[in-house]
Amino acid sequence: MEFERIEELINEKKYVQVKEILSEMNEVDVAELLKPYNPHMTLLLFRMLPKDLAAEVFARFSTEQQMDIINSITSEELRNIVDELFFDDMIDLIEEMPANVVSKILTHTDKKERELINEFLKYPSDSAGGLTTIEYVNLKKSMTVQEAMKHIKEVGLNTETIYTCYVTDKNRILEGIVSLKDLVTSDDHIIIEDIMETDIIKVNTHLDQEEAANIFRRYGFLALPVVDNENRLTGIITVDDIMNVISQEATEDFQKMAAISPSDEEYLDVSIWKLAKNRLPWLLILMVSATFTGRIMGRYEDVLISIAILGTFIPMLMDTGGNAGSQSSTLIIRGLAIEEIKVSDGLKILFKEFGVSMIVGLILAIINFLRLLVIERVGILVAVTVSIALVVTVILSKVIGGILPIFAKKLKMDPAIMAGPLITTIVDALSLLAYFAIATAMLGL
Amino acid sequence: MEFERIEELINEKKYVQVKEILSEMNEVDVAELLKPYNPHMTLLLFRMLPKDLAAEVFARFSTEQQMDIINSITSEELRNIVDELFFDDMIDLIEEMPANVVSKILTHTDKKERELINEFLKYPSDSAGGLTTIEYVNLKKSMTVQEAMKHIKEVGLNTETIYTCYVTDKNRILEGIVSLKDLVTSDDHIIIEDIMETDIIKVNTHLDQEEAANIFRRYGFLALPVVDNENRLTGIITVDDIMNVISQEATEDFQKMAAISPSDEEYLDVSIWKLAKNRLPWLLILMVSATFTGRIMGRYEDVLISIAILGTFIPMLMDTGGNAGSQSSTLIIRGLAIEEIKVSDGLKILFKEFGVSMIVGLILAIINFLRLLVIERVGILVAVTVSIALVVTVILSKVIGGILPIFAKKLKMDPAIMAGPLITTIVDALSLLAYFAIATAMLGL
Repeated sequence: MEFERIEELINEKKYVQVKEILSEMNEVDVAELLKPYNPHMTLLLFRMLPKDLAAEVFARFSTEQQMDIINSITSEELRNIVDELFFDDMIDLIEEMPANVVSKILTHTDKKERELINEFLKYPSDSAGGLTTIEYVNLKKSMTVQEAMKHIKEVGLNTETIYTCYVTDKNRILEGIVSLKDLVTSDDHIIIEDIMETDIIKVNTHLDQEEAANIFRRYGFLALPVVDNENRLTGIITVDDIMNVISQEATEDFQKMAAISPSDEEYLDVSIWKLAKNRLPWLLILMVSATFTGRIMGRYEDVLISIAILGTFIPMLMDTGGNAGSQSSTLIIRGLAIEEIKVSDGLKILFKEFGVSMIVGLILAIINFLRLLVIERVGILVAVTVSIALVVTVILSKVIGGILPIFAKKLKMDPAIMAGPLITTIVDALSLLAYFAIATAMLGL
Repeated sequence: MEFERIEELINEKKYVQVKEILSEMNEVDVAELLKPYNPHMTLLLFRMLPKDLAAEVFARFSTEQQMDIINSITSEELRNIVDELFFDDMIDLIEEMPANVVSKILTHTDKKERELINEFLKYPSDSAGGLTTIEYVNLKKSMTVQEAMKHIKEVGLNTETIYTCYVTDKNRILEGIVSLKDLVTSDDHIIIEDIMETDIIKVNTHLDQEEAANIFRRYGFLALPVVDNENRLTGIITVDDIMNVISQEATEDFQKMAAISPSDEEYLDVSIWKLAKNRLPWLLILMVSATFTGRIMGRYEDVLISIAILGTFIPMLMDTGGNAGSQSSTLIIRGLAIEEIKVSDGLKILFKEFGVSMIVGLILAIINFLRLLVIERVGILVAVTVSIALVVTVILSKVIGGILPIFAKKLKMDPAIMAGPLITTIVDALSLLAYFAIATAMLGL
C-alpha cells in the first residue's frame, strides 16, 4: 500500500504522476483510495483511469458514489463504462439505481442486451441466477484444440474467466466442460469432444446462493455452470464472487444468531437509526417473552420470601442454562449451514447432546455443590436443591439447543433463529420451573 | 449423485462396471462414497481407481482411513500415491500420521524432497506457509510467450494451477506474475517481461491464514504467492484451499463466541467426551462469575423482601441486557474478523453504540412502562424504576459490547472471546447494581 504517497502527490497536484501510478494499481485498491474524497475530487481522479480499469473501479464503488459519477460524466464516458462493465456488475448496478439513472444507462445498450438484462433482473439477488455472468467461453464439441485456443484468444479479454470453457449444442444445452489446463496440455489436433468432461456438476438459476457456495467449497471449483429449467446454459458463477457469498452468508448467520435482522451493509456505513431498526424487533420479542420468566418468579414469591437465599442462585442457573444451550445450538446451526449435519441426524444429535449434558451438568453441579458448602456455607439441603436444579437445567438446555435448529430446518425455517437469545429465553423459564419444583419438594415448602 | 446405483452395483459385485463409473467421477464424490464401507471394502474399491484419481481420493480420506490404506497396500502402491500426491496434501498427511507410518512414506521420497518436507513442517498449520504448495509454474522473464506456453504444456499436469505463472530470477526472488489469460491472449513472440505484472501482492510464510484469506477475498485472486523473509518465492496458495479457510475461520469464531473451545473436527465425528471437554471450561468460568450477580442480589435481600415484585423483573432486565450486548459485540467481532472495522474505529463505535442504545433503550422502556401500568398494573413508581433501569441496562450493554472486542484486539487477544456469554455475565452484574441503586433512590428504601 502506497496510499500515503499517492495522497501526497494528489495534495501537491502532481496529477501526471498520480495518473501513472493509478493505472498500474489493482482496481480494489484504486476504489478504496478514491472512496474518502469528495465527489468532485473522486471524479477528477476517476477520469484519469484507463477505460477498462475505470469500469472495474466503478463496479466497486458504493451506490452513492456510482450515482454521483453517472450524474457528472458525459454520455460518451458513460457509454465507455457500460461497454466495459461485466454483465453481473451491470445487473447489480441497475438493481441499485433509481429509475431515471437506469434509463440513462440503458440508452447505451442494444435491444438484445436489454432483453437479457430484463431476464436476469428476475432472479432474486441471493439465488444462483443473481450471481451469474454471461461472459464465458463457449466452445463447440467439433472444434479442435487449436481452433478452441484461437477462439479463446479472440474472446478471452471480454470474458470473466477463460479457465473453464463450456461446450454447448445449437440449442444452448450444456454438453460438456473443458478446462484451459486440459486444452493447454493437449495436442493441437485433438477434438474437444474427446477431452471434454461430460459428467458435469451444475446448478439451476433458482438455487439458493448458499447452496451454490457449498458446492464450490466441496469441489474446489473455479467456476460453476448455471442452467435454466430447460437445461440450457444461462451463464456461469465464478469463484471470486463465491468467496464473498461464503463470508456474507456467515455474517448473516452471525447477525441472526445474535437476534439482529440481517443486513449486508458494513457496520460503519449504516446509520444509527437503521442499526436500531435492525436490532429492535427481536429485543422487543425477547423482552416480552422474558416477562413469562418473571411471572414464574412472581408465582413463587412466597418461596423466595421464606428462603430468600434461593433467589440469589437464579442468575447463576439462568446464565449457565443460557450458555449451555447456546453452545449446543451454535454447533448444530453451523453444522447445518456448511452441510456437515443433515436433518436426518436428529436422533444422533439428541443422543449426543444428552450424553454431553450429563457429563457437563454433573461436573458443574459437583463443583457448585462444594462451593456452596465450603465457600458460601449454605445448608446442605439448599446446596443439594441448587445442584440438582443445575444438572436439570444443563440437560434441558443442551437437548433443546441441539434439537430446535433441526426442527426449524425440518419446517423450512431458518435454523439460525434458534440460537442463543431465543434458546436462553426458553430455557430460563423451564429452568426456573424446575428449580422451584425441586425446591418445594426438597425443602418441604 | 448416482450413489445408490453404484452401491447396488457393488452389492451385486459388478466390479467392472463400478470401476468404469468410479474412474469418471469427481474425487470428492468418490471419497465420500468410499467413506462408510469397512476397511476391506474401501481398499477393494480404492484399488480400482486410476493412479491420479487414487491419490486425489486418498488426500480426502480421514486420518484413520489413510492409515488403514497405508497399512494394507504394497510398497509399490504406496510409492504411486506418494508420487501423485500434491505437496501440500503430502505435508498434511505427514503431520497427521504416527512416526512409523511417516517413515514408511518417506522411504518413497528422495533426499531433496525430504529436506523440503522438513522445511514445510516448520510452518504452523494455520499460517500461510501451512497452506503453501510448491507445485506452481515458474517462468523466466526472458522467455517468449511461445516458450512459456511450451513450458506450461510440459509441466502443467503436475502443478496445482497453471492459471497464474510466477516469474523468478536465479535466486528465486519473485520478479513478476503473469496470468495464463494474458499469455493466451498475447502474441507468440512477445517477451514475458513486457506483459508480466510487477506490482505484486504477496504474503509472508508466517502470515496468519485468516489474513491470507482476507487478501484473497478482497482481490478475488485465484492464487497468491508466498515468500520467505528473504523475499524468495516459497510457493503459492490456491483459492480452493482458501475457501475452506474462510469457512473454517468463521466456524471457529462461531464456536468461540458461543464459549466453546474451537475444534475443526465435524460435530458428528467428535466423541461425547471431547465435546464435553470443549464446552466445560467456559461454562465453569461463567458459572462462577455469575455467582457475583447472585451476591449482589444477596446484598439487596431486604429490598427484594420488602418489595417482592422488584425481583420478578430481574430476568427481563438481565435477558434484555445480555441480548442487547450480544448484538453489539457480534457485529463488532465479525467486522474486525473480515476487516470492515479497524481498532482505530473505536471512538466511532462508541458514539454509534451510544446512539443506537439510546434509541433502542428508550423505545423498549416506553413499551415496557405501558405494559407495566396497563397489563401488570404495578404502581407508577415501580414502573418508572424498572423502565429507567431498562434504559441504563441497554446503554451499558451496548457500549460495553461494542467496545470490549476492540480492547481485546488492541491487547492482541482474540476479540471473539468478548461475545455474548462473557458480555452477558458482565452486564448482568452491572445492570443489577444499577437496578437496585435506582430502586433505592426512587422508592426511598
